[in-house]
Amino acid sequence: RGIRVGYTPDVLTDATAELSVALLLSACRRLPEAAEQVKSGGWTTWKPLWMCGYGLSDSTVGIVGLGRIGQAVARRLKPFGVRKFLYTGSGPKPESAAEFGAEFVPLARLAEESDFVVVTCALTPATQGMCNKAFFGKMKKTSVFVNTSRGAVVNQEDLYDALAHGQIAAAGLDVTTPEPLPTDHPLLSLKNCVVLPHIGSATYATRSAMAVLAAQNLLAGLRGEPMPHELQL
Amino acid sequence: RGIRVGYTPDVLTDATAELSVALLLSACRRLPEAAEQVKSGGWTTWKPLWMCGYGLSDSTVGIVGLGRIGQAVARRLKPFGVRKFLYTGSGPKPESAAEFGAEFVPLARLAEESDFVVVTCALTPATQGMCNKAFFGKMKKTSVFVNTSRGAVVNQEDLYDALAHGQIAAAGLDVTTPEPLPTDHPLLSLKNCVVLPHIGSATYATRSAMAVLAAQNLLAGLRGEPMPHELQL
Repeated sequence: RGIRVGYTPDVLTDATAELSVALLLSACRRLPEAAEQVKSGGWTTWKPLWMCGYGLSDSTVGIVGLGRIGQAVARRLKPFGVRKFLYTGSGPKPESAAEFGAEFVPLARLAEESDFVVVTCALTPATQGMCNKAFFGKMKKTSVFVNTSRGAVVNQEDLYDALAHGQIAAAGLDVTTPEPLPTDHPLLSLKNCVVLPHIGSATYATRSAMAVLAAQNLLAGLRGEPMPHELQL
Repeated sequence: RGIRVGYTPDVLTDATAELSVALLLSACRRLPEAAEQVKSGGWTTWKPLWMCGYGLSDSTVGIVGLGRIGQAVARRLKPFGVRKFLYTGSGPKPESAAEFGAEFVPLARLAEESDFVVVTCALTPATQGMCNKAFFGKMKKTSVFVNTSRGAVVNQEDLYDALAHGQIAAAGLDVTTPEPLPTDHPLLSLKNCVVLPHIGSATYATRSAMAVLAAQNLLAGLRGEPMPHELQL
């Protein structure tokens, strides 16, 4: 037996789901762009369609990877008036069908029908580069893409092209390749792309819970006892 | 009888509640500040408490004015793990107690106990300047203030002092006095204040519904018929 490895699952589910919704709303309602208009003097008289975005009312939301975090995202989005949840992943989850009326569909159909795509899957050989030119090409021009899983799930060149050419309306990323993203990266030049510095779990309460759990894992390991959460290899 | 006036209620409830939640999450999870760090090169290696914010899990949310929009905000915040809803206003609303377990309290107690204060009341002589030095002075140092009602409900000098001196953690404003806010206003110099250009109802679907309803009011008025929504003076 080699080196034992502890980890800190569950404690960051709520914070990460919350950040996913924050990022989705920021992107679809154009918050950074609107706040910038206030500072730059672009805010003048009332105009009917100025700074309009796409809301969740009566929308279809597609979740790529309906695990702990994906389910927590769906639970938070439901009261915003979402009409239909779609999801894709390793297989159907009957309990989610019961809670959200969520429908298991192939990735291509999820891309075609969703007004919002939220990626909360694990990074695996099967998901690496999954959100690529073909994927974005199937999405609606009015749709919004959010990734809070791992940067490498997305082909960033293809995402840039989709955003720059109006193939999709907006994107929100809490994860990138690499991290940190170089400050001269083309994605940072787009008004319709919100990039955050991987702050999914960044609340004081969550980081404290992560620290406590990490310490408990470590102490148990040092004592030769079972860890509260130990990676099983 | 003088000039008949039509208006467009209800159709903007969902979009405004959605924007209120977007603004709350942006302020408490520090999205504009975090996005700026990505662009400026402030994002470096992982640090336990960097860009940490305050999440909704296990929080107390105080809603000032639990009308149509306030209730729609509470409905959306509930699945984020809010522990307790407080509200204040013209009187208790038993149906909201049933739906949210919301408790009717005086304004001072709402300020003292809330982790998040969301203002969604009407502007009246009673609410003008209501959020002032005494109000912010009662709030927790870790609390977040959100206003999506009317700018004049807030004393902006007092809010600036509360934010600048750490009396409260952050604020999000979709409304200001005046509108547009001058670009050299002190509130715009604060990292912990998110100011939006009054975009509560700014979704394509909502602005379209507002336009249709305004036209229906106008046509009914011209025909001498009852308007779908006419101001009763």
